[in-house]
Amino acid sequence: MILDTIHSPADVRQLSLSELEMLSGEIREFLIQSVAQTGGHLSSNLGAVELTIALHRVFDTLQDPLVFDVGHQAYVHKLLTGRKDQFHTLRQWDGLSGFPKPYESPHDAFIAGHASNSVSVALGMARALALQGKDSSALALIGDGALSGGLAYEGLSDAGGSKLPLIVILNDNGMSIQPNVGGMHRHLRDLRCQPSYYHFKKWYRSLFGKQPQRNPLYRQIHKVKTSLKRAIYPKSSLFEDMGFVYLGPVDGHDIQQLTQTFDWAKKLQCPVVVHVKTIKGKGYRFAEENPGKFHGVSPFDPKTGVTKSGDSFSSHFGAELVALAGENPKLCGVTAAMADGTGLSPFEIAYPERFFDVAIAEGHAVAMSAGLCKTGMRPVFAVYSTFLQRGYDMLFHDVALQSLPVVFGIDRAGLVGADGETHHGCLDVQYLCQIPNFTVLCPSNYAEMTTMLHWATSQEEGPVAIRYPRGGEGEFIQDTALKTTVELRSGADVTLVGYGMCVNHLLEAAHTLETLGVQAKVVKLNRIAPLILVIYKKP
Amino acid sequence: MILDTIHSPADVRQLSLSELEMLSGEIREFLIQSVAQTGGHLSSNLGAVELTIALHRVFDTLQDPLVFDVGHQAYVHKLLTGRKDQFHTLRQWDGLSGFPKPYESPHDAFIAGHASNSVSVALGMARALALQGKDSSALALIGDGALSGGLAYEGLSDAGGSKLPLIVILNDNGMSIQPNVGGMHRHLRDLRCQPSYYHFKKWYRSLFGKQPQRNPLYRQIHKVKTSLKRAIYPKSSLFEDMGFVYLGPVDGHDIQQLTQTFDWAKKLQCPVVVHVKTIKGKGYRFAEENPGKFHGVSPFDPKTGVTKSGDSFSSHFGAELVALAGENPKLCGVTAAMADGTGLSPFEIAYPERFFDVAIAEGHAVAMSAGLCKTGMRPVFAVYSTFLQRGYDMLFHDVALQSLPVVFGIDRAGLVGADGETHHGCLDVQYLCQIPNFTVLCPSNYAEMTTMLHWATSQEEGPVAIRYPRGGEGEFIQDTALKTTVELRSGADVTLVGYGMCVNHLLEAAHTLETLGVQAKVVKLNRIAPLILVIYKKP
Repeated sequence: MILDTIHSPADVRQLSLSELEMLSGEIREFLIQSVAQTGGHLSSNLGAVELTIALHRVFDTLQDPLVFDVGHQAYVHKLLTGRKDQFHTLRQWDGLSGFPKPYESPHDAFIAGHASNSVSVALGMARALALQGKDSSALALIGDGALSGGLAYEGLSDAGGSKLPLIVILNDNGMSIQPNVGGMHRHLRDLRCQPSYYHFKKWYRSLFGKQPQRNPLYRQIHKVKTSLKRAIYPKSSLFEDMGFVYLGPVDGHDIQQLTQTFDWAKKLQCPVVVHVKTIKGKGYRFAEENPGKFHGVSPFDPKTGVTKSGDSFSSHFGAELVALAGENPKLCGVTAAMADGTGLSPFEIAYPERFFDVAIAEGHAVAMSAGLCKTGMRPVFAVYSTFLQRGYDMLFHDVALQSLPVVFGIDRAGLVGADGETHHGCLDVQYLCQIPNFTVLCPSNYAEMTTMLHWATSQEEGPVAIRYPRGGEGEFIQDTALKTTVELRSGADVTLVGYGMCVNHLLEAAHTLETLGVQAKVVKLNRIAPLILVIYKKP
Repeated sequence: MILDTIHSPADVRQLSLSELEMLSGEIREFLIQSVAQTGGHLSSNLGAVELTIALHRVFDTLQDPLVFDVGHQAYVHKLLTGRKDQFHTLRQWDGLSGFPKPYESPHDAFIAGHASNSVSVALGMARALALQGKDSSALALIGDGALSGGLAYEGLSDAGGSKLPLIVILNDNGMSIQPNVGGMHRHLRDLRCQPSYYHFKKWYRSLFGKQPQRNPLYRQIHKVKTSLKRAIYPKSSLFEDMGFVYLGPVDGHDIQQLTQTFDWAKKLQCPVVVHVKTIKGKGYRFAEENPGKFHGVSPFDPKTGVTKSGDSFSSHFGAELVALAGENPKLCGVTAAMADGTGLSPFEIAYPERFFDVAIAEGHAVAMSAGLCKTGMRPVFAVYSTFLQRGYDMLFHDVALQSLPVVFGIDRAGLVGADGETHHGCLDVQYLCQIPNFTVLCPSNYAEMTTMLHWATSQEEGPVAIRYPRGGEGEFIQDTALKTTVELRSGADVTLVGYGMCVNHLLEAAHTLETLGVQAKVVKLNRIAPLILVIYKKP
């Protein structure tokens, strides 16, 4: 196997084109077999095999920092930078992370996990390199889905005018986690109509040597050419408007074409967008047919593609929301490109006119929900705790200051396990409780969540957040009444207070204490905020 | 005076064009005289006089919700909606707010204060109106500066595909709070080259009746026309790419042209961008010449335009940063369109190559700073506490998880007074202290701030935030040593603990207590987080 001989990107650069194509096949087979065992992000990595190989052929990621966006497409990069032997430990305690981590390898320039930050980070690096007199390139590898985030636009807007060797590699699979929505997606789709433009442009520039901008003839006829191009091609490139040289689209599974384009981008020594078209799940039939299912997948049978999945807080939340929407015509469902993950897909099918997928844009989702609510609707935004951090200011400014009764379904609250520190939902209790007018509820089982959701969507004033963990309810203490506090167990010696599914651990602890002769009272908080009412209303 | 006869927008609609032009002059004179007394946002309101009049001629803001972005340009709207007599109470306790407030008037559809949210909010409203079967238009009035925020892009991207009657009025004064930077600004600047296009387009559409899209001939030749347009005009419109009908640019001081354009936009019943060119400070020489100074201005002499300004934490922060940058070649200054407000203008002049104004894009500023820092520079991001809320997720994800030594100068921490609840910096202590690895410092005078800034910029690991209030140090307790806690006063009966300039109030309280026979100890925290070290290191 060629893959076994790859210990660093230098080994990749020794291989011929045909060997690299064999290597691509080996990597795909390895990924399918390995992720079938461990679970992980499969589709996006199968789509990024040739892209990653070509990057390592052209760039030295010890000198040219490569910033991944989101980072779930870094598996091939990990394989090519000496981490193949650890791959069976993927996403496990003390094992290999599913995301780039500088502490794992100097080839991982920056952490990743949240979307749309890569251009900003790479621009900072490009500025630092320039100030230090280095002529390295800074690279941002971003998917088309992450481009919908406003942060990416802020980064592109600043970077386009920087004149620095910053290369944005746009991995466009036309898909993202959910099929894309919004303006950028339409723009990219239309750019796909222009396959010949890349060749024309390359030929044209090649006439003027390595740095065409320095050629006065080139500059002189550039304006004419630009006008001509607008006449020939139906859409201009947003990226060129922003100050980037736009190269593309290129076939993301053609190593030669990718290598040539990256080579050219490197030589330009200015802000460049390389638009690469890839197929999510490439080379694995089940993933190509259903890339969403194999986006982040639990262990599966590689021969059949069959996984098993149980119920969860998310699926119960979504089902209950559909039921409520039948009774309440004001109720709307909102997601930021996570209809599957948050359980809202059935809502989308049942009430498409009241369902809004705003793409990866959590801040917008919050502000748009505030607008819906202010004009009489009752939006429910289901979102992962860690991603709602992006909407923190809008929670305060657009929702809470006017005490609008927007409802938040805060999924993946608490520790999330395999995705690691970038994805834990550990901050929401504090960041929500400090915002004025917010009510924060935490169920410990599905039935409580149902009661809370009914109550929340019937409020006429004030935002309500219901936070629930990843996965299912498991064993639980039955209590569906929505009192503020619930005494689950009495005891005079010590009082244990908790909320959510953690109360199960408190009950276990109380039992253990009893064997030691200590009587522990266990109190469950259904409502985490406002707590002040508890203190003053029940003196 | 015509202005005295205006009690609601209905009165505006009774006036002839020449009367409206007179009204514009009266409004300008009123604003100059009134803001000279109270202070407030002058330049942007002088620029929006005709624009606001024309909006109220065409739309009914009780039916067509008008969402202001930032909202400091709402003074004319307030005058036309029955609030002239309260204007002398502007920005005072129990007085008229300097920003739109639904509790002041049903014509204020939503609050405003933070930038770039208006399109998102108006889209939510447009969706609610459509679901309720109403054919009103939702309006978003946004300046070119706020367009640099990623949230505006997220909103535009979602709205462009909505097909709803959402009208984005782009008030483009080419200026914003600071001169604009970045890709969008270049795009708008280039759009200014096409004054004749608007007339051509209007004439062209008029040939096909009220709903030209329904005319098959129109549709047939639309593609040809589009190609032709690209050949004639050097840039296409980003907004058209996003799905908007783009109308403009129109002269923002020509009531007739504005009225016609808004009329047309209303009839289109789809997402429209109306690009209006205005002059910031229009009609007041001192403000036209120096719009930045009269953006948010303290009381001034209307005849001379002279204000008085004292020193402040901001100016000392900026001066000290310049001094430090002389010693430390790694030090960089970062601002999000607030070089003046945060005191960083001298830094921009002294070290332009190490100064980065990223436009109104706080999230990007944080992530870009993280990139700078990870590659060996030492960025200092000076930002208002309330606006840093936009970068909350990036503080956690991009800075804190890797414990990068980025320094934050958190200006306008605590209550800010006249700007009101949208601008208070009351959340930063909690939102920063909960983020892992963050050190949060709070000086009570300039000298302490200097010591803290020296210490912060010399750290090799971990982000440091220094928070300081609006305005100057006033009277203070001299203490420049950077110990974690400082006992300012001893006393055995009670202990008062505080930080920042509030310790002055604690000392006053202690004196008062002493007259009552109570001895109070006063402890000042220089470091608010981490507090845990205090407890364990000094048992």
